[in-house]
Amino acid sequence: MSATSNRYQVSIEADPTVPIIRMTRDFDATPAQLLRAHTDPDLFARWVGPDSLTTRIVHWDARTGGSWHFISSRDGEEFGFRGTFHEIRSDRIVQTFTFEGQPDGVALETLTFEDLGDGRTRLHAQSLVDSFEDRDAWLRSGMETGVNEGYAKLDKVLSDGAVR
Amino acid sequence: MSATSNRYQVSIEADPTVPIIRMTRDFDATPAQLLRAHTDPDLFARWVGPDSLTTRIVHWDARTGGSWHFISSRDGEEFGFRGTFHEIRSDRIVQTFTFEGQPDGVALETLTFEDLGDGRTRLHAQSLVDSFEDRDAWLRSGMETGVNEGYAKLDKVLSDGAVR
Repeated sequence: MSATSNRYQVSIEADPTVPIIRMTRDFDATPAQLLRAHTDPDLFARWVGPDSLTTRIVHWDARTGGSWHFISSRDGEEFGFRGTFHEIRSDRIVQTFTFEGQPDGVALETLTFEDLGDGRTRLHAQSLVDSFEDRDAWLRSGMETGVNEGYAKLDKVLSDGAVR
Repeated sequence: MSATSNRYQVSIEADPTVPIIRMTRDFDATPAQLLRAHTDPDLFARWVGPDSLTTRIVHWDARTGGSWHFISSRDGEEFGFRGTFHEIRSDRIVQTFTFEGQPDGVALETLTFEDLGDGRTRLHAQSLVDSFEDRDAWLRSGMETGVNEGYAKLDKVLSDGAVR
């Protein structure tokens, strides 16, 4: 499944004045389904990241004050990611995010689930870091492919009925 | 005890290009002692905040992936604060911070302990939020009094020999 086959396209924007990346993407799902797809470890591992990577959950405690750790791999090469869940509520997840290959880098991520009605939800994802250099390095890292392919897999997980 | 009696003064600076507050303050203590003063709940409650507030710890799990919650009170009025510990290591703490009176506001805080030798340490505290408006509201909130009085109490906790 490629990005161009998506019914909905992701918008990725760099804020002009603050080192933030903002992404917006619609889904054929309710806010509660999107919340579960982001907090249930088995569901999350099925869709996160580009098609070329396979993800296994190392630790997952999806509650306000909990933490998470997963490893994505390709041909024996591993990429670890970890963080905390600052807050999980029905319309919002606030979490920290570190790529273990750059252990000093930390992003503060805010996901908001906007109910569009008729079983559709707009996901707003904001990622804040402490410098424009780090923000722009993320934008140049090819993240768009991973985001598009991941959300296309999430579309499929949702349309398969896996997220009740 | 007033701020002007401190041997060391705190420097509080607003970054001109990113919504960050940076604070720097020297202490007569080793990095390991400063780390303990920030991670031991009994020690932390003795010094944090302005002289007018008394702090009690509600929840405290000071490890990478843990979380914290404390309440400061004055004449029956309570102010709650909570967050997660994204990372705790010997020279650095990265944590999230929310004042429960503004539950949607979240800061990402990075504390670094710079060893100056001779039993002295420079604390660097960085607080990142997602807008200049929120950052500047914190600067106007009278935080300088709380920071100065808190660090003066921390000086005393350290000079009393409470932090071995």
